[in-house]
Amino acid sequence: MKFSVTVTLKKDVLDPQGKVVQNTLINLGLDNLKEIRQGKYFEIEIDEKDQNTAKKKIDLMCKKLLANLIIENYKISKL
Amino acid sequence: MKFSVTVTLKKDVLDPQGKVVQNTLINLGLDNLKEIRQGKYFEIEIDEKDQNTAKKKIDLMCKKLLANLIIENYKISKL
Repeated sequence: MKFSVTVTLKKDVLDPQGKVVQNTLINLGLDNLKEIRQGKYFEIEIDEKDQNTAKKKIDLMCKKLLANLIIENYKISKL
Repeated sequence: MKFSVTVTLKKDVLDPQGKVVQNTLINLGLDNLKEIRQGKYFEIEIDEKDQNTAKKKIDLMCKKLLANLIIENYKISKL
């Protein structure tokens, strides 16, 4: 069973990495750009038949390692 | 108009970062894990009313900066 996890910075947390990407894109001549924020993306394959159990395990992975819940949100989707 | 972009390594490209995350999760006691691959995630807000034009601009951003087409794939979705 395969899931995707996206980890994004919370709305009020500064994103210097995204800012650099944004400035670079503007310097490359790509205007109309309002905002760009960068996050992390994981594709996780898990050996588990029950979707609910699998999702719970992925959730635990996010809480334990993948996301820093103080400054980040995460979203799990089935692939 | 807001889009998300996920950039992932192509299937045959080694992903040492994902491997480290995978080993760490296994060491934390989360078994059943078959594979984990890490990618990049961007949320892009663009000042453009026409969805097709907007998508083309995002595509150009990916080609010019966000993705390395030799080793990476990218996917654009409307948010």
